[in-house]
Amino acid sequence: MKDLNQRPLIGITMGDPGSIGPEISLKLLAKEKLYEKCRPLIIGDAGCLERAKSFVDLDNLCINPVESPEEGTYKWGTVDVLDMKNVDLKSLRVGEIDRDSGEAAFQYVDKVIELALSGQVDATVTNAISKEAINLAGHHYSGHTEIYAEKTGTEKYTMMLAFKNLRVVHVSTHCSLREACDRVKKDRVSDVIRIAHEACIALGIEKPRIAVAGLNPHSGEHGMFGREEIDEITPAIDEAVATGINAEGPIPPDTVFSKAFGGMYDMVVAMYHDQGHIPLKVLGFVYDDKVGKWKAVEGVNITLGLPIIRVSVDHGTAFDQAGTGLANELSLKNAVDYAVRLANNRKKE
Amino acid sequence: MKDLNQRPLIGITMGDPGSIGPEISLKLLAKEKLYEKCRPLIIGDAGCLERAKSFVDLDNLCINPVESPEEGTYKWGTVDVLDMKNVDLKSLRVGEIDRDSGEAAFQYVDKVIELALSGQVDATVTNAISKEAINLAGHHYSGHTEIYAEKTGTEKYTMMLAFKNLRVVHVSTHCSLREACDRVKKDRVSDVIRIAHEACIALGIEKPRIAVAGLNPHSGEHGMFGREEIDEITPAIDEAVATGINAEGPIPPDTVFSKAFGGMYDMVVAMYHDQGHIPLKVLGFVYDDKVGKWKAVEGVNITLGLPIIRVSVDHGTAFDQAGTGLANELSLKNAVDYAVRLANNRKKE
Repeated sequence: MKDLNQRPLIGITMGDPGSIGPEISLKLLAKEKLYEKCRPLIIGDAGCLERAKSFVDLDNLCINPVESPEEGTYKWGTVDVLDMKNVDLKSLRVGEIDRDSGEAAFQYVDKVIELALSGQVDATVTNAISKEAINLAGHHYSGHTEIYAEKTGTEKYTMMLAFKNLRVVHVSTHCSLREACDRVKKDRVSDVIRIAHEACIALGIEKPRIAVAGLNPHSGEHGMFGREEIDEITPAIDEAVATGINAEGPIPPDTVFSKAFGGMYDMVVAMYHDQGHIPLKVLGFVYDDKVGKWKAVEGVNITLGLPIIRVSVDHGTAFDQAGTGLANELSLKNAVDYAVRLANNRKKE
Repeated sequence: MKDLNQRPLIGITMGDPGSIGPEISLKLLAKEKLYEKCRPLIIGDAGCLERAKSFVDLDNLCINPVESPEEGTYKWGTVDVLDMKNVDLKSLRVGEIDRDSGEAAFQYVDKVIELALSGQVDATVTNAISKEAINLAGHHYSGHTEIYAEKTGTEKYTMMLAFKNLRVVHVSTHCSLREACDRVKKDRVSDVIRIAHEACIALGIEKPRIAVAGLNPHSGEHGMFGREEIDEITPAIDEAVATGINAEGPIPPDTVFSKAFGGMYDMVVAMYHDQGHIPLKVLGFVYDDKVGKWKAVEGVNITLGLPIIRVSVDHGTAFDQAGTGLANELSLKNAVDYAVRLANNRKKE
């Protein structure tokens, strides 16, 4: 093992106090292997974590409240928590949307951004917050990404989703499918190809192979089913290739994801929200009808374009499972793994 | 085992003689278990199959040419083939698009349809043909489905794709994504929900649970990202429910397939080609970059609305693998399993 202080320090927000965040954070920090690759610091509330121990049968873990990152021990068995002391256990409503929980969750996010901007943590990982709860608390954002963008003064950012070695960036996300068709324009496609290339470099991939999906079925079959491939996507790929980026396409949307997942490409440029979200969720979200719940939720969400590293779990607060100890920590584990990879690669530069 | 003659008789076309069809047919018929559930009859060329034995190291199989289905032995170890005697091995070009191969492949399809229409086989399964080759031979069809429709006098038919328990029918397939948005109309969605319901009944599912996907991301979020869910899809679902069909939706496109694959639904109504094809191929097509080829191709394709049963492999001729013995017979096996299920259920009626 390398010098312990060389391990990147990862600030992990506890998420909404009434969500599965406290539980899955403890489940993750109970793994010895985690400490071999990083120094994890929860930004949250020590009392709330102390109580969550019983939900997950991890009474042997020692919660260690600290006031600054350098006070952390970062040893397996101890859960270092930057204690914001902002949860009142008597009034905490586990499993519910609540103004006070929204306020507490917002403060963790605010704090971890401050720690990253000042270099006190090497990367940030976020557990889920409730959009409704933070809005009830007077913080009018649609989610983490907007908070990060504002607090770091970032205008151009893009969401990357990943499940194992399938990584996807999108040309558009939250708009109608008709508008998504309109947004497939050469300049935007070209920008996203470059973002995909740079994200691979940030992940330590030396010679990124970028796959660009078509928009239409069979990539339009030479214009028979739509012309966006001919008029917009191919010119964008040509432009990227001319600048030295190894981009290929347009590749038929129904085979490009299998190929990338199988190892042919490092990143896929998807043309619209569901084109990228469907394959990632089909692979990463496993639903078990017998018990009526998701048994694996493994994807991660990376915000590209920020001055700091931010990786998020790819699931919500799961209020319905909070307090049961049943929630799965795999997405959080994968998020920390990606954060470690990005932080290690940034240190090399 | 039940009375051997009660097993459904499945007519399996050999496909293009220069394709992987002969090889994967032999690989499938070499399995003893196949004979427990059906009586398989290849519609093809005995000489071509005889030669393909060496490609797949199955010299112990005995090719048994017959002139009509009742001459078949249907015993494991014997490959019964309705011998069309239409392949000249001296001139056969394995792995190439060829007029003579196209003609031969077309004749198998023509024959199996005739056998099914006259009740001599209980169901038909098709190996892949080359569209170019059949067109070179003067048969101007875009694929099997059009041949089946014409020969059986069918006007309204729909393609259903399946991989394990994920089954999908589409509101539209081969058109641009913009046109696909235009085609999401209440009447068509309503028709496809009914087709999905009836297909489940034909598969022996007593109380089908039909999931209807949305068109837009998050199913439009109450009209924020598109109104098709409100104006077209929901009214179609309401209409189906009023006729006693258990249809639910619109369900966000990026979670509906995981839910169906996990067992929550028996069939998904997808709004456009790639919405359904992406999840099916991500699950059913496994690409291995180390060897540069697909290592599993497991989906099947069922034509709904015909008077006879037709199930197809969900892959092409794979000319690049023909003669190597490497091609995988899983999709063909799954196609035969679906045909058996449909045939057994039809007999019960």
